Amino acid sequence: MLTANELERLCVVLVSPRNPLNIGAAARAMSNFGFLRMRVVNPYEANFLEAKSAVGAASVLTTADVFENVADAVADCTLVVGTTAAVNRELEPSHNSLEDAAEPIRQHLQSGRVALLFGSEKTGLSNEALSHCHWSLSIPTRDEHSSMNLGQAVAVCLYELVRGSRPVPKEPDVMPAIAGDLERITQLLLETLESSGYMSGHSQEFVQEKMRREMLRLNLSKRDAELWQGVLRQILWKFQSRK
Amino acid sequence: MLTANELERLCVVLVSPRNPLNIGAAARAMSNFGFLRMRVVNPYEANFLEAKSAVGAASVLTTADVFENVADAVADCTLVVGTTAAVNRELEPSHNSLEDAAEPIRQHLQSGRVALLFGSEKTGLSNEALSHCHWSLSIPTRDEHSSMNLGQAVAVCLYELVRGSRPVPKEPDVMPAIAGDLERITQLLLETLESSGYMSGHSQEFVQEKMRREMLRLNLSKRDAELWQGVLRQILWKFQSRK
Repeated sequence: MLTANELERLCVVLVSPRNPLNIGAAARAMSNFGFLRMRVVNPYEANFLEAKSAVGAASVLTTADVFENVADAVADCTLVVGTTAAVNRELEPSHNSLEDAAEPIRQHLQSGRVALLFGSEKTGLSNEALSHCHWSLSIPTRDEHSSMNLGQAVAVCLYELVRGSRPVPKEPDVMPAIAGDLERITQLLLETLESSGYMSGHSQEFVQEKMRREMLRLNLSKRDAELWQGVLRQILWKFQSRK
Repeated sequence: MLTANELERLCVVLVSPRNPLNIGAAARAMSNFGFLRMRVVNPYEANFLEAKSAVGAASVLTTADVFENVADAVADCTLVVGTTAAVNRELEPSHNSLEDAAEPIRQHLQSGRVALLFGSEKTGLSNEALSHCHWSLSIPTRDEHSSMNLGQAVAVCLYELVRGSRPVPKEPDVMPAIAGDLERITQLLLETLESSGYMSGHSQEFVQEKMRREMLRLNLSKRDAELWQGVLRQILWKFQSRK
């Protein structure tokens, strides 16, 4: 679980974003995962104002800081990480998959400010922007369609950062049915089958064993057992009341 | 790494989506991660056509299948998983975090078709839609802002499925029942309950959802499904022949 301070130390930096809907979507994903500090570099002014004033804009967006260049936007950070679609390991030796990037980022957030950079929708991060990054990461998309929507890329990266750092949920406790209940159901079922004519052609022993095995395989809970006893009693009652 | 066959076995099912941009965004995320089978239930017709004809619409979208209801959309699937924002463990005992849900879904994709359901932007999945799900999952968003954008939710879920490596594959020793068979059993059971007078005092919807959920919880095999259809048909036949 990331602490409030750690969440606060991550800055999502959108570099030259164009589409107001994408800016809004990035802000929403940040809010969903608890990262509230957005920085925007050189946005298309009109679009940024439009995103900012959109109905339901996350407070993330209204409190976003605007910078003229990447250098200023990351000046107070001790780790700067770029996101890229294309993975060219020869050109970018210090490149990580998102999965491998999460742990060093989380570690760093314990004491320092981290900038996570996202490029514009059309071109991604420029080489100039990447030159400000300690290293870069990419989301494992397929080669045939590697370019992600900005808002979705932000959502996936932030999910990876909060993922796995939370307490493990407890399996729901299910009370298993006791054998006596299973046998009662088997007997009720046999009576029902007998009344309905299902047994014809089979010996009672054969059907009884088949159904008993089936009951065990179903792995009924105590609650299931009560439900099915009720159902079978009702069917039997109906059969008998019609005789 | 999921194989091509495993990727193909996952159906992303959008239930009553409204916004064409979101439908397009969901399709794009699917294409990014290599999941190409989209199913759409009861879309707002005009919006769906608009999304389909949008410039740059992923081929995922143009090949999407449209269904009238959830039952039909998941009929050939052996595992049906719903996505929800709100986690109410008391109401939904069979609820997983996305992280915990990924492994069982990947396991299942080795041999069976899996439906992953997303609800509409406004309301999420209805109780009726959830009653078709074996279990549900949620993305670990913060309580103060838990509702995610549809396209972003799809992106995050699919990322989790392709992320990381998995342990040695295990072959399932039993063939699970397909959802269509489970729904047939549910309907036969409802007829039986109606004929037996079990419904009195309950609405049909209440009992139907209760029994549909129960059927999913029982985790029936293909063989179980055949057995119980036979049993219920016999009981029904008997009820009817006595009229």
